Amino acid sequence: MEKQLNNETIIGRHPAIAALKSNQTINKVFVQANSNSDAIAEIVTKARKRGIIVSQVPKSKLDQMCDNQNHQGVVLKVAAFEYATLDDLFLRAKSKNEDPLFLILDGIEDPHNLGSILRTADAVGIHGIIIPKRRAVQLTATVAKTSTGAIEYVPVVRVTNLVQTVKQLKEKGLWVFGTDMKGTDFRKWNAKGPTAMVIGNEGKGISPLLKKECDEMLTIPMVGHVQSLNASVAASLLMYQAFTSRGV
Amino acid sequence: MEKQLNNETIIGRHPAIAALKSNQTINKVFVQANSNSDAIAEIVTKARKRGIIVSQVPKSKLDQMCDNQNHQGVVLKVAAFEYATLDDLFLRAKSKNEDPLFLILDGIEDPHNLGSILRTADAVGIHGIIIPKRRAVQLTATVAKTSTGAIEYVPVVRVTNLVQTVKQLKEKGLWVFGTDMKGTDFRKWNAKGPTAMVIGNEGKGISPLLKKECDEMLTIPMVGHVQSLNASVAASLLMYQAFTSRGV
Repeated sequence: MEKQLNNETIIGRHPAIAALKSNQTINKVFVQANSNSDAIAEIVTKARKRGIIVSQVPKSKLDQMCDNQNHQGVVLKVAAFEYATLDDLFLRAKSKNEDPLFLILDGIEDPHNLGSILRTADAVGIHGIIIPKRRAVQLTATVAKTSTGAIEYVPVVRVTNLVQTVKQLKEKGLWVFGTDMKGTDFRKWNAKGPTAMVIGNEGKGISPLLKKECDEMLTIPMVGHVQSLNASVAASLLMYQAFTSRGV
Repeated sequence: MEKQLNNETIIGRHPAIAALKSNQTINKVFVQANSNSDAIAEIVTKARKRGIIVSQVPKSKLDQMCDNQNHQGVVLKVAAFEYATLDDLFLRAKSKNEDPLFLILDGIEDPHNLGSILRTADAVGIHGIIIPKRRAVQLTATVAKTSTGAIEYVPVVRVTNLVQTVKQLKEKGLWVFGTDMKGTDFRKWNAKGPTAMVIGNEGKGISPLLKKECDEMLTIPMVGHVQSLNASVAASLLMYQAFTSRGV
């Protein structure tokens, strides 16, 4: 299970550099004293250019700040991760002159999976991700770290009731695709037009009520013994198929 | 970082059931006393059918046996994970009357990534995985758990020197594909014929010496801000493309 970390901490070199390059509000940068790493030097330079206070502290202090996770000599104190609204997602699609392409996560629990999904979502230009407020991992420091910075670029909306949200999306003209064992082969899927895809919980899949709202089901063919793929792998296969079928 | 667990422990319900269904040698099964879970009942039944000793123990004992990881009421003591040989991989391809399709992992460090890769490898019928003995995660209890049982079905070969192994594979007629930022779009890749694909370390990618041995490079197109995908996602995208291009 994930350590209970303050939501306002970013740790690790790549995530720190990504945060410094983005528009995120950074309150303070802590780096390990006497580091001779080029990456740390780059972080210090970037932070000072942005007028952010940089503190050189002993390794033990950094260890303590992030509960002994692997900080690689850098900890950032940042404003809490901001969630977007559904309208933001539609505006983002519109500003890119594209049909909406959203990813709905029905109860992803593992922060590494959400981080990995954010990376792929950024890579293929998904307009945003929708997650439920309960029984699902939220935007935490571990998610930020495993997203290698993608958390700064992919808007995430948090909703109370996914079924209600899917109904709203359908009213706005989106076609909603779920995944199960007996749908259309996802490799034949054409994601042109306003589209949302739903990925279920790591163990339980998509909840029955939400499945009932899906317009169509997709299946990832499997010829081995295991019953399912890792959730971030399944989400990424669908996202790349969407990306490819849109002709990118 | 991964907890240092005994290599001979399998924890969790799905991995336990998968192990009981497989040919793996299981020495003993420990389940939580007074559990009323159907899954635990199934595990006990299966274990007794195979003549394996089942011990009912308090939760605290299970917690201690697996260093407080999430065991879901079951811990198996098994024979250490067995590694295969390169010959085993070729024989496996031959027995299925298929051209060899191997995955080479150049220094994957995260056990969750290796577990996730094993799941996809099982799902698409990869004949085996090759990993280096050093500076890479080996077959551990965490890998077994995150593989949801795939570790029982996908042979893994451990070699001292990946460059030498790739040279051997090329002598045996395999075409070796690497991944970097400026290769052929992987979605155009045809993996017919004897094939090996190489996935690099999470942070550093494929080592320069190994890259030099690759016959051809593939690229996963990305249009966002992050530099790379999660290693298990990248490996899975390639594996599904190989699977699809072989006409499965």
